[in-house]
This record gives sequence, structure tokens and C-alpha cells, in this order.
Amino acid sequence: MEMQTMQTSPSTQIVNVGGFDIGGPQFTVIAGPCSIESYDQFLETAKGVKASGAHILRGGIWKMRTSSKAFQGLGSSSFDFIKAVCKETNMTLISEVTDARQIEEIYDMVSCFQVGSRNMHNYSLLKELGMQKKPVMLKRGFAALIEEWVKAAEYITAGGNPNVILCERGIRTFETATRNTLDINAVAFAKRNTHLPVIVDPSHAVGIRALVPDLAYAAAAVGADGIIVEVHPRPAEALSDGMQALTLNDFKVMMNKLERILTAVDKPLHKELVYAN
Amino acid sequence: MEMQTMQTSPSTQIVNVGGFDIGGPQFTVIAGPCSIESYDQFLETAKGVKASGAHILRGGIWKMRTSSKAFQGLGSSSFDFIKAVCKETNMTLISEVTDARQIEEIYDMVSCFQVGSRNMHNYSLLKELGMQKKPVMLKRGFAALIEEWVKAAEYITAGGNPNVILCERGIRTFETATRNTLDINAVAFAKRNTHLPVIVDPSHAVGIRALVPDLAYAAAAVGADGIIVEVHPRPAEALSDGMQALTLNDFKVMMNKLERILTAVDKPLHKELVYAN
Amino acid sequence: MEMQTMQTSPSTQIVNVGGFDIGGPQFTVIAGPCSIESYDQFLETAKGVKASGAHILRGGIWKMRTSSKAFQGLGSSSFDFIKAVCKETNMTLISEVTDARQIEEIYDMVSCFQVGSRNMHNYSLLKELGMQKKPVMLKRGFAALIEEWVKAAEYITAGGNPNVILCERGIRTFETATRNTLDINAVAFAKRNTHLPVIVDPSHAVGIRALVPDLAYAAAAVGADGIIVEVHPRPAEALSDGMQALTLNDFKVMMNKLERILTAVDKPLHKELVYAN
Amino acid sequence: MEMQTMQTSPSTQIVNVGGFDIGGPQFTVIAGPCSIESYDQFLETAKGVKASGAHILRGGIWKMRTSSKAFQGLGSSSFDFIKAVCKETNMTLISEVTDARQIEEIYDMVSCFQVGSRNMHNYSLLKELGMQKKPVMLKRGFAALIEEWVKAAEYITAGGNPNVILCERGIRTFETATRNTLDINAVAFAKRNTHLPVIVDPSHAVGIRALVPDLAYAAAAVGADGIIVEVHPRPAEALSDGMQALTLNDFKVMMNKLERILTAVDKPLHKELVYAN
Repeated sequence: MEMQTMQTSPSTQIVNVGGFDIGGPQFTVIAGPCSIESYDQFLETAKGVKASGAHILRGGIWKMRTSSKAFQGLGSSSFDFIKAVCKETNMTLISEVTDARQIEEIYDMVSCFQVGSRNMHNYSLLKELGMQKKPVMLKRGFAALIEEWVKAAEYITAGGNPNVILCERGIRTFETATRNTLDINAVAFAKRNTHLPVIVDPSHAVGIRALVPDLAYAAAAVGADGIIVEVHPRPAEALSDGMQALTLNDFKVMMNKLERILTAVDKPLHKELVYAN
Repeated sequence: MEMQTMQTSPSTQIVNVGGFDIGGPQFTVIAGPCSIESYDQFLETAKGVKASGAHILRGGIWKMRTSSKAFQGLGSSSFDFIKAVCKETNMTLISEVTDARQIEEIYDMVSCFQVGSRNMHNYSLLKELGMQKKPVMLKRGFAALIEEWVKAAEYITAGGNPNVILCERGIRTFETATRNTLDINAVAFAKRNTHLPVIVDPSHAVGIRALVPDLAYAAAAVGADGIIVEVHPRPAEALSDGMQALTLNDFKVMMNKLERILTAVDKPLHKELVYAN
Repeated sequence: MEMQTMQTSPSTQIVNVGGFDIGGPQFTVIAGPCSIESYDQFLETAKGVKASGAHILRGGIWKMRTSSKAFQGLGSSSFDFIKAVCKETNMTLISEVTDARQIEEIYDMVSCFQVGSRNMHNYSLLKELGMQKKPVMLKRGFAALIEEWVKAAEYITAGGNPNVILCERGIRTFETATRNTLDINAVAFAKRNTHLPVIVDPSHAVGIRALVPDLAYAAAAVGADGIIVEVHPRPAEALSDGMQALTLNDFKVMMNKLERILTAVDKPLHKELVYAN
Repeated sequence: MEMQTMQTSPSTQIVNVGGFDIGGPQFTVIAGPCSIESYDQFLETAKGVKASGAHILRGGIWKMRTSSKAFQGLGSSSFDFIKAVCKETNMTLISEVTDARQIEEIYDMVSCFQVGSRNMHNYSLLKELGMQKKPVMLKRGFAALIEEWVKAAEYITAGGNPNVILCERGIRTFETATRNTLDINAVAFAKRNTHLPVIVDPSHAVGIRALVPDLAYAAAAVGADGIIVEVHPRPAEALSDGMQALTLNDFKVMMNKLERILTAVDKPLHKELVYAN
């Protein structure tokens, strides 16, 4: 890898999402369902994760699915109740756009746009996001070199939007016992060789509920700036990715141990905000 | 892989592109530059490849580049001369769309749309192409399972467009001596387990000019329905992918040997059309 | 890859195995069962493949199996009948050694030693083979770089044994629809950048009987010096690798088409020898 | 992966190496040079790592090198001084055997045999180790499935030796920015789905000195039973793997932070033994 092509200073860009600085001395936890399925499901999840210390909500509105026959997300029919849940819980939402035309549609609903792994190379989409005033969380392509990931981020920053958060979510390897392979090396590498914040998605990275907390701990210890985790009140009923969603109780237990590790590495959890919206 | 998810009949869908049936008893050769750089470059290439037996032109108008600073293609400024070259040589063009908004722009200029490897998972784009009346050549994602490739094709066919051609262009593996790894197994597998035509892109699959003809021969022998090859009159001056472009003479030499192999496997080259346009 | 570490002349080392030159103007076919299971099974296979034009026999005496509970090969109890079959059919045998201590045991029974994919990095074994007077067929490790494969060959040649044949047998990638991924690029690369003969094992490379002939044709067209193929009179009864073994009739059909392709590329099959032993 | 082929109880086998229980409530640190190069180098390293809290020494006597021309280790000429260093520091040694014939040679010098990544599939060697009375640390093959790794361990345990420690040392993927990719998922998976202790080798897993401590922290947090780390008094002068060796001071700094994380996860470092030998 040509190191000169990457910025070699340690992480210095701090990206504020919904009132929380990502990339600074505190650790950020983003949690919520894979897909937003209903007002009740989203509200119950939001309240539950907030009670255990989550800072920001995640939730899919339009889903990228391998099969055209699989659930594709609720789309615009969910807009009203999503806003209601955010207001009720005083939290903000990070959500994925899968097409440049969706940016405007959800602009007022999100505190941060997410680019999914399968769109990391969608340079048209990245260029549009480079012209926005809101932060972007850029998931690594599941087969992208670290260098390609950093260069994809440059498609956004070159357009005038410096607020990019890198998210490692597992790469595709020969191993099939786990859904993907969390590239923990890449987290350490990106933290020490780019100026951008780096977070980890342990849910997609391993795809097995029982192992998600272990990988969240590893992310905290290796130096990540935060995690984004899938949580569902009743994973067995989830419309997508139920195998890897934590229950609300799993999440609570995980947060306790995570907090101890974060204290040991001097990167404590953010405290709750009074006014997030 | 769940074989029941794939159509198990041998290739039966025949896709006509510019007057040439792809997927039938003849073999199709698509050739041209990586990027369309100028009227002179494109015309010289088109005349040269046609003289050696190529059937359809290829050439990039908008390029997907890892770096935002690299040459991004001529875009709409090239439309007029592209049409002129096609008319002058009586050939049609297959070209990549990287954004749904480009489909309409080049609709009248191409006989077939190309979806690039980095957009195979761009389901928004695939859905748009499913609503068109022109064929689509779907390159396999460089880290896509065969099953995901077939399911991506279903995003197009489900929309009402049955005319999809699969194109294997190399996958990303641990090997770095060659640019990608041509998955020749996948060509054989897709030919025998799907109903769609399958062609091979030896240029991207290996990335080394001297090896491109060898892989074209392998594609012909394994049972592919055609190849798509990069050719440039002066590869050293190419604005993209010069390392893997054949010269016009390389191409001519390759076509001679290819023809002998195709005769041996009873899948001869298409003859020239009188009226392609 | 540092090209200067590899010999850059085209293939010039010709390795004679049982009377057949491998690496010269003719193509060599090695065929036989995965495991040698009985006198009857081995004799029937040997006669069958010879009748269709095979030149050399293959067959495992000690098997490398992932599970310690799987069939491990007949070992020394098969020595007498193996010699009898070779004599009866006037063919020679290539067989795998999995431990340096086996070299002496089968020295008089084989015309060539095989190093399996899982032992490519077993440098102790390679050093011992470097001191022998018989040729060695070195399978590529299933996750070895081409450079590592060539350097493994140097462990043998550095010991004084120049008679090494490289064998590409598929690499491990993310794809699971086929057993391995035949790295056809590596065959072209090794032929043009090393001085050693290169053969292909389509059986292990794809692991699906119906696709084995297609890949043998690709090997012939890409420029390989030969193939090594698994054949079993009744694959359903095979003690190992039955899924990928050709029947005797499959093999016969394959040889007919292979011969036509080899003629087209000016690398015809060897003719039968009068005295192989 | 067929989960039923693997033992599904959590880690219960405790393996005692030189007086330290691996797989129990304490964490074990194994440290030392890649290659044992001289009495002075080995003694200085041993004293240094012990002073910072390491429990067991590592050091290569015979090295597996890709090139036959690279340094192959001191071999038997180092035996006397290795014993002297162990005695002087009251530590024991874990060292790699690359050939079954070496087991007897170093039997009295080591408290644990190491099987390297390139020998994980060397079943002849594993069978021999299954007949020994000393523990075996089995490194995962750099392209081995978790299932193959567990089955390789069964080659040892089936022979009557239950004392196997699994060691994850990075797998080969498409990423080249780091030497290998630490499969942290596999550590979590193996801890929760096998009965064997699992340790991590962060040095080989990432291959970049500055990132080794970060990955050691991740290993501690994910639940590993220990780490094995390369340390050299003057890495720039190392005869092998200098790029990834920690200095004695790096090691000291790492141990301080590691201790804090281990306290947070309730798996403290072993205390020093009075009599190790």
C-alpha cells in the first residue's frame, strides 16, 4: 500500500453527530434495529437502548437485499413515525441512503447519512454526499482495500464535506463459520494512518448474536471511536438480520462490560445529552 | 450454494445486441478502448478491431475510478463523435452506466448497457435497467458470490427486461501477481446452471497485456458465449488501464488463434453483419 | 510480485516422466483414482484411461484428510498389486508422499513424486525431494502466492534435482459454489515467467464432476503442458473425492474434445509408448 | 460449518505449560524473539520480557522460510545456550518443530511444542505430537477454516495427547496493508465452541510493530487465554521478522495497558512462579 496516498496524522477530524463528538476522547454507541419495521418496534428499541446508554439510533428505511424478493424496507411510509420516535426519545437517527435521490427525502430526519458496504464504490452517490452539510458514515466495502476505503472517503471530502466517519463492518474471506471477518487490523491501521474517526459494526462483522458483544469489547480495546450495533426487542421476529440482533437485555449486559473496558483504556462513554434534537 | 435458487437449465436466453445473437451457436467478440478519449482514438480502434473480426464496440464514457483525482471519462462532450464513429464503422456500442440518471442520456447511443463490477450491488440502478427495452451486460462484482451475481440479474429480469448477459471479469483473491483472478470455474458453472449467456472479460481479469490472449483462449474453450477485450492503438498513451490493453496487432494475432479454437469446439465466430445500426 | 525473483524465460525445463516429456511440444494426460482402493479398482481404471489415451497413472497411497477419522489410504499393503497393475498396463505411476520417510518406501514404484497442496510449505519434505533422482510434481498450496510456489520449487532445485513440474490445482477464495477456484491466470503467468512445466488438476480445482472436462479444455487452451485428472469406474463407491471423479466414459468423451482443442493450439497429445517401464 | 462436528462446550481443557495454566482464570503472556540468534540476544530478551511480566519464552530454532536462501535458524548449535538462558531466567521455552524428527531432539528443552501455520495440515507431524507427553500449541493455518483447525487439533488429541492450545495468528485475505488479517471472530468463535484454550499471536497477525499492542489489547478484550508476542532488543538487527518485533520498552508499555484491560475483564495476568523449571 502506498502510505503516501493516505493522511498519516492520527485521527484529528472530530465529527459531531446529534450532539456527540465522534473521534474525540469519548466513545459513541449507535444502536437500533436493522430495519425500522413499525412505530411500536422502533419506539421500544429506542427507549430500551437509550436506557442502557446508547447515544444515537440506527435503523434502515430502504434495505439493500441480495434477493429482489426479500423485504426492501418501509420507505417513505415510515417517515412520520420515525420523526415521532426521535422526538419522544430525544435521540437522532443515522440511516442509509442507497440512491442519490433519497438524500433530499430524509435530509431532515437524520443527523448522519450512512453509506452501506455495497455502495462504497458508488461514486455517484459519494459525490452527492460530498455536497451535503451533514456527516456521512462510510462503511467499508466488504472486499475493499483499506486504501480504496480511504479514497472513497476522499470522494466525499473533495466535494467540501469533511465530516466522514469510517466504519469497519467485516470483510469477505474464505471463512464461512462467521458471516464476515471483522478486520480488526484495519481499525488499528485506519486510526493510526488517517485523520478520520473509525467505528466498528460488530453485528455485520460476525453475524452471530452470541459473539457480537465479544467483538464490541475488542473494538473498544483496539482504539475505535465507537460502535454501531443491531438491537431488536424480539430478534426471532425481525424482518431482516434477526440472527445477529441483540435483545434489549443482551445490549444492557454488553454496555456494562463495555463501560469497564472503556474506563481501562481512558476512552469513556459519552454522557447523555439534555437536548439532542 | 442453494442450487434450487438458480435456474438449472442450460443457457437458453439468447440476447441480441446490435444484430448479433449472444448465447446461441456463435461466439461474439466485443472490443474497444477502456475509455473513449477522442474521435481519432476511438475511430482508429474501431476500424482496427473490426478489420480483425470484432462484432461490437466497447468504450467507457463515465469511468469508475478508485481515486477522485483520476480521469473520470469525457462524459457528454463525447456523444457526437461517438455516434459518428459507430455510423462510420457500421458498429454498435456497449457502454457502462454508473448512475440511473445516465440511462436516458445514452439510450440512443448504445445497443447494450453495461453494469460495472463495482455497481453489481447497486440495486437502484439494476431496477431502473429492468424497466428498459435494451439488453444489459452485468459484470460480476469482484467479490460477489455466483449466487449473488445471479440474484442481481434477477433484479433486472424481475422488472421485465429478460435480456441480461452475465460477464465474468475476475474476482479479488489473495494473489497479487495478477490484477484479479479470472474465475473460470464460474464461467463453466454459470453456463451449466443458469439460462443466461455468459461472456468473459480477460483484460480486467488478469490486467497484464501479455496474458490477455491466453485467457481469451481459455474462455473460448471453457464454453463462454463471447469475450469483451480492451484494445488501444497506443496503450502507453491510454488515459486508463493501459497496462492491460492489447495493441491492434496483438488483437489481430489473438483473433487468428481464437478462431482455430472456436472451430475445434464448434462455436464459430459470428460473421460480419451488413447492417448493424 | 518481484518479478526479478522468478526466472523470466519461457518454459525450457523438460521433465521426463515414465518416457513422456512434460514441458515440450506435446501434451500429457495423467489419470487415475483419487485413492488406490483395490487391485480390481486400480486395474480397471488403469486399463480404461489408457484405452482413451492417458499416458501416466495417478493414485493415492497415503491420503491427506482433514479429519483423522476419514479413510487414510491403503499404505504399504497395496504395494504389490500396484506394481502388478503398472506392469500389466505398461504404465508408470505418480503418487503423493506426505512424509519424508515415505520417499524410500515407494521409490521403485513411482516415476514421479507428488507433493500435495497441503505440503507445499513443508520445506523438510521439499529438501529431501531435492536430493532424489526422480522428478517431483509440486502442487500449489491452496493459499500460496505464485511467488511462494516458485520459491518452494527452488527448495527442490537448490538441492540438485532440476526436474520439477508445477501443478495448479485451485486456490481457496470466498466462492463456495465450487470446491476451489482454478487460478487459470496463474497457469498463464507461470508458463510465461518461469522455466518449469505447468500442469493443471481440474478435478480438485472445481470439485464438481460435470465441470471437470470444461476446465480441462480451458487448461489445454491457456497453454498448460498437461492435466492430472481423477477417474473412477464407479464414482459413487469411491472412498474419497467421488463427487469430482470422472467415469471411464466421461473421460473418453473428454479426451475426444481435448484432442481437437490441442490440435488447434499445436500442442498434440503424446503418442503411446511401446515400453514405459 | 457443521457445528455438530465441533465440541460445543465452552473452554474447559486447561493446559499447563511450565507451571502456568492456560485456559483457566488467568491470562498468559509468551514472549521472545522470532529466531534465537545468540546467547546474548536471547538472554537479554528473556530478562527484559520477564521483568515486564512475561511468563513463558518463545524463540525459533528451525525457521520456516519462504525462500531457501533466507536464514533457516541456528538449529542444534544453539541447544546448550538455550538451556542456559532458561535456567538463568527460571523460564521455560515454547518452540516450533518443523519435522517429526526434531521432536526428540528438543524434547528436554521445551515445555510446549509449537506447530507453525504452514504445518497445520502436516498430519504426519500432528500424529507424532499426539503421542508425546508435552503440550502442543497449534497455530491456525493461514488459510485454514476454523473447522479444519479444530480437526487438525483432533489429529493430536486422537493420539492420546489432550493438551492442545489453539493459536490464531492471522489469515490470508485480499488486504495487503497489513501482513495478515487477525481473525478476531475466530478467537471468539473458538472460545465459545470448542473446549480448548485459545491464544493470539498479534505479531504475525498484523506484521507492523506500531499496531501489535493495539491487537494484543483486542485479544485480551475478546476473551483470549493469552498472547504470544515477538520481542527483540534491537529489531532493526533481527535476522527475521524485525518489522513486527516489539522493543523491550514497547513490550513494557504494552504490558501496563494490557494489565488494566485484563483487570476490567476479570482475567488477570498470572503471577510470577517461584520455580518454573
